[in-house]
Amino acid sequence: MVKATYGRAVGNTCPLFPLADCLVGETTCDGRKKMYELLAREKPMHVMDLPQKPEEQAAEEHWTAEVRKLGSFLEEQLHTEITEENLRRAIKQLNAGRAILSEIHRCRRHHPVPIMGVDLVGLTTSFGYCVDRDDYHNKLRGLLAELQRRIKEKEWACSLDRPRILWTGLGNSLGCDKVLKLVEECGGVVVCQEGCGGITRIEDPVDEEIDPYQALAERYLRVTCSCMTPNTRRFEDIDRLITEYRIDGVIDLTWQFCHTFNIESYRVGELVKGKHGLPFLHVVTDYSKSDVGQLRVRIEGFLEQITLGRRRS
Amino acid sequence: MVKATYGRAVGNTCPLFPLADCLVGETTCDGRKKMYELLAREKPMHVMDLPQKPEEQAAEEHWTAEVRKLGSFLEEQLHTEITEENLRRAIKQLNAGRAILSEIHRCRRHHPVPIMGVDLVGLTTSFGYCVDRDDYHNKLRGLLAELQRRIKEKEWACSLDRPRILWTGLGNSLGCDKVLKLVEECGGVVVCQEGCGGITRIEDPVDEEIDPYQALAERYLRVTCSCMTPNTRRFEDIDRLITEYRIDGVIDLTWQFCHTFNIESYRVGELVKGKHGLPFLHVVTDYSKSDVGQLRVRIEGFLEQITLGRRRS
Repeated sequence: MVKATYGRAVGNTCPLFPLADCLVGETTCDGRKKMYELLAREKPMHVMDLPQKPEEQAAEEHWTAEVRKLGSFLEEQLHTEITEENLRRAIKQLNAGRAILSEIHRCRRHHPVPIMGVDLVGLTTSFGYCVDRDDYHNKLRGLLAELQRRIKEKEWACSLDRPRILWTGLGNSLGCDKVLKLVEECGGVVVCQEGCGGITRIEDPVDEEIDPYQALAERYLRVTCSCMTPNTRRFEDIDRLITEYRIDGVIDLTWQFCHTFNIESYRVGELVKGKHGLPFLHVVTDYSKSDVGQLRVRIEGFLEQITLGRRRS
Repeated sequence: MVKATYGRAVGNTCPLFPLADCLVGETTCDGRKKMYELLAREKPMHVMDLPQKPEEQAAEEHWTAEVRKLGSFLEEQLHTEITEENLRRAIKQLNAGRAILSEIHRCRRHHPVPIMGVDLVGLTTSFGYCVDRDDYHNKLRGLLAELQRRIKEKEWACSLDRPRILWTGLGNSLGCDKVLKLVEECGGVVVCQEGCGGITRIEDPVDEEIDPYQALAERYLRVTCSCMTPNTRRFEDIDRLITEYRIDGVIDLTWQFCHTFNIESYRVGELVKGKHGLPFLHVVTDYSKSDVGQLRVRIEGFLEQITLGRRRS
């Protein structure tokens, strides 16, 4: 993520970077935090100090103040005024989008699924480039209706026997979907994603009733990025998703040098293997294609382990 | 640091770990933060949330509250009461030790130096194991007197022509002094250390006049660990030390996977080469001996660069 963001920004291959008036970052992980110091040379940049122990009362107070400061920064940079009314409207609008997207993801609780993981990620990524929110919501609604139709008409995307995989850890950056593709090429199906870009980043709305800055702060402090410690909520999420999405095995993806997801993987493995008795695979990789052959062998073996386990039980 | 701390703790090769009643950590870097989650399984552990943007007023308030919470944790764990008076006495005592140690370091401003870097680090490390503070202070005073005598009697530790090196970045863990040794074996002399374990961690005392918790918080928020952003103070320190210690070249040491010192090194290099026009070497290594030969060649080349530069000017 760090290399991709910085490299594409300064290498002029990011389509969005030249359009930005200013940049906003947060002190999530070491790599991002220090990269922002260099990226700040390119555009006006504001870095928010994110507390690392979200369960503490003081963390919430500190973070709410940071969210307010971000508001002031944006007002100044964009020569605009952020009113409480505007904020409330934006929160409502974005919550609405998140609600439809969550419904889309939940369609994959069905067995078999109405859409393959690789197709869903492809569609939602392309929708993400919509600047017009109404257009974006219409696209999402269309997809949801199509998935609901498929479920009703039992038009499944794959056969019953495909192992259902929970993909956790690092998310899917543009052009970096090699692990997702490999799982589905090798006979599995990714029915749920947790972690960066996953379902838990979507299904938890911003509170529409309270002060909007407070609401934004509360919501974004609930992010279960592994930069948080001890990140208890993530383990509760994984625990719940394994049941809700009828998971047969968990693949935990770490992009190289992401220490936090890498170390946290040890605890994820304990949960998956210990509490749920499910096969667990931890993949550490980068954006290159050099290890695709090796990964294919590991993923084939992992899916075979699930299939053999089923026959035995 | 992370691997050494955790590995030695759980592998039973750390002499101090079995003696500890409880452990205290802070959210400095990703590696430490996540390692503490696993280390917390061995002993009662308290992790302090360290703000990452020390220049903000809110950071100081948040951190002061964290220091107070640490006090309560220690009182509970150690079945003791921490009074304001005790704290003030401890601050005075530790400041006194720091003052002598700072004087010792400052003796190395002389050209040539009265003690080689490798000898000073060896002595101060061994003194560090003194539990009795009076004994520790006496040892420090003895060393200071000896260095002052040498300066008075012009009893130098090396010849005039040795390049004077500032060692910055990661510090010297037990048995990991390979870079320090190589510099002095290859004809340089390390006259100053900045970064982990360096002079700036010592010469800045805790305020004895104000509330002791406040004073401790203020002081430890002034730590110039590269986990801080944008860590401005560290660059002011390096700038000043280059002049004060008559530096001929800077070697920046990064232990592998320490992203923060690694990325910050780019800015250190700009300062050293750009503002001071001095040679700069960035070394990324680990605790193994496997790259000693390669490092020797790089360090020899670096020292030669300094010597050639001198002849030309």
